[in-house]
Amino acid sequence: MNTLRFGIAGLGNMGSIHARSIQGGKIPRARLAAVCDPSVDLSSHAPGVKTFSSTEAMIRSGEIDAILIATPHYSHTTLGIDALEQGLHVLVEKPISVHKADACRLIAAHKNPSQIFGAMFNQRTDPHYSKIRELIQSGELGEIRRITWVITNWFRSEAYYNSSGWRATWSGEGGGVLLNQSPHNLDLFQWLFGMPSKVRAHCQFARFHDIEVEDNVTAYCEYPDGTTGTFITSTGEAPGTNRLEIAAERGRLVLEDGSIQWKRNQVPTSEFSRTSSSGYATPAIRDIEIPVKGSGEQHNGILKNFVEAVLDGTPLIAPAQEGLHSVELANAMLMSTFLDKTIDLPLDAAAYKALLEERISVSKGNEKLLRIPVSPVLINEFGQSFNAHPSYSQS
Amino acid sequence: MNTLRFGIAGLGNMGSIHARSIQGGKIPRARLAAVCDPSVDLSSHAPGVKTFSSTEAMIRSGEIDAILIATPHYSHTTLGIDALEQGLHVLVEKPISVHKADACRLIAAHKNPSQIFGAMFNQRTDPHYSKIRELIQSGELGEIRRITWVITNWFRSEAYYNSSGWRATWSGEGGGVLLNQSPHNLDLFQWLFGMPSKVRAHCQFARFHDIEVEDNVTAYCEYPDGTTGTFITSTGEAPGTNRLEIAAERGRLVLEDGSIQWKRNQVPTSEFSRTSSSGYATPAIRDIEIPVKGSGEQHNGILKNFVEAVLDGTPLIAPAQEGLHSVELANAMLMSTFLDKTIDLPLDAAAYKALLEERISVSKGNEKLLRIPVSPVLINEFGQSFNAHPSYSQS
Repeated sequence: MNTLRFGIAGLGNMGSIHARSIQGGKIPRARLAAVCDPSVDLSSHAPGVKTFSSTEAMIRSGEIDAILIATPHYSHTTLGIDALEQGLHVLVEKPISVHKADACRLIAAHKNPSQIFGAMFNQRTDPHYSKIRELIQSGELGEIRRITWVITNWFRSEAYYNSSGWRATWSGEGGGVLLNQSPHNLDLFQWLFGMPSKVRAHCQFARFHDIEVEDNVTAYCEYPDGTTGTFITSTGEAPGTNRLEIAAERGRLVLEDGSIQWKRNQVPTSEFSRTSSSGYATPAIRDIEIPVKGSGEQHNGILKNFVEAVLDGTPLIAPAQEGLHSVELANAMLMSTFLDKTIDLPLDAAAYKALLEERISVSKGNEKLLRIPVSPVLINEFGQSFNAHPSYSQS
Repeated sequence: MNTLRFGIAGLGNMGSIHARSIQGGKIPRARLAAVCDPSVDLSSHAPGVKTFSSTEAMIRSGEIDAILIATPHYSHTTLGIDALEQGLHVLVEKPISVHKADACRLIAAHKNPSQIFGAMFNQRTDPHYSKIRELIQSGELGEIRRITWVITNWFRSEAYYNSSGWRATWSGEGGGVLLNQSPHNLDLFQWLFGMPSKVRAHCQFARFHDIEVEDNVTAYCEYPDGTTGTFITSTGEAPGTNRLEIAAERGRLVLEDGSIQWKRNQVPTSEFSRTSSSGYATPAIRDIEIPVKGSGEQHNGILKNFVEAVLDGTPLIAPAQEGLHSVELANAMLMSTFLDKTIDLPLDAAAYKALLEERISVSKGNEKLLRIPVSPVLINEFGQSFNAHPSYSQS
């Protein structure tokens, strides 16, 4: 195979952007072979591209080698399973599923290792995060003691939430900022630090918008060794913050405004604490700025890597299996709020599903679940917004 | 009265510093008339100053008009009540008491409004905080939506905790970082933002040191209007952070490294959210740096203000009554951890006292409760440390 024939399911915000990237020749050896979106008029949309009104038909058409799933969240699982069972390579938008039980079903359907199964965690291509990961995994930062990530620059207006009937409903999206905007950050969180063993979160539902789901979250998590993490996210704040602070044995590292600043301890903190004859002194530090250029190739980087994985056997940047973790973290944060208690991980997937189904059963989204077409104005605006601030991808 | 005659109870870290300030003429119209510390050799310590081995005797000596209480925490209540009942003016170190029930008893003993009763919340003299308070109270910042204060630059070594037998024990101090170092920040928190209605905290006991009490805390609090607060403090981190971030209707204000940076929204966030036809746009902002010089007069500022309150009727910067709030916040954070649940405020004082007494009953501090004299090395070092970083007062 010399060219990978993509079929895109879903031409909302993200699907449209991916379609333009592939058609615009930005992804070498990728061809947009087919698209499918029952709610969009495809007659003029995709010249030279087969159009389908049913994803089942597209999956079985023989016209595509890979499907890119960019539909509303719930169908990620069903479409993904169908496509995997039909032997396609699959690239799924985040979140890979709405809840852990679905994510496990989806991952279990990936039985053939020669089928490539990736997830659109484009922020993994940002060299700031890969650099920090390298500093952690090499041991240079030393053991981590505290993580604080305030990631509140996901502001969305009422117009955004009004743009589609399924948005920000339990039945349509299955959650709010944790399922739509922050999966990127939750994925990076577990990619950098691994999974915590406990989560206690305080989600606020409809605090800033006339919606059903959470638009403001403060979450605490703890690791088996006592490391603490705080994750704060919101779609109601402007201007938001994106600041990741890591306190480790070898000092404090901060990522903010595209800059990585490390105050490096010359002696590890705990050794200094044990051996210092002083009560108040602190280890000598050296200020280090870690040079990082740009914010990576983002979505196109994931698309290129996916093509290379299929055609050349290149390892995936974001295997879909790893998408389980961000789903589990999001679910745990919601479950902690629903039950007003600390949640131990791994999460009880069935228990969470039952809690979610309670909310779906009374969701107002049921009334307007037939998808309202996304406004073209919003689509274009989204693309501009993304291009203007590539390090803060938006969805 | 032209001069206020001070008696200082307790010549540990803080008492010694206050004694030197008064004797060094730094507090106009104040005279150090007497000192009392049964664990310190006072024969050469205080030339020209009456010495007492019993605080009861000092309080009743007729030699002093005001007592400055700088003894270990538990005795703040008992000495404060005795002094108030004997008609003295009282200035008490933080925390005013170890727990809310004691704080209420202490405050109730203050029946005569002509007796001045202040607390040593020296950080209230820092103009950064008073400037922020002014921006909040004037309405310039708009309604507050989120508060995040990471105040982890309270690093203490094992040597610090080994310096006194009562330190960091339930029986000796009644708590750790929340009772010793962070009362300043808890006081500022409530001074700036008022009291939350709910607290959920995760205190870690002996995480970084061989002690009984909490040395690392992550606390979430919520206000009746939904405003969220996160307060993170530690004595185990180096270099620590002191960053206060406030997200409000009129933008985001950050205090860090002695600088106040305000990204001011030209339209309030919620109005923009309701009226914008865009889904992703954010309000236009103006970057404003609030000029603030220095970090105020700190302890000496509180001492001067106290003298002026007695002699001139000047309002107190930090009335002791307001010290109840930082005690209540600290207690609520510990209680939330003890019971693994969210605590509603006002706190049930008797319930907290009972929980604390359980811990006191098994405290190892009981064995070494007879106070071990504070090492003079540490006292001097403390003074130097304080002078070197006046904006981060240490105790």
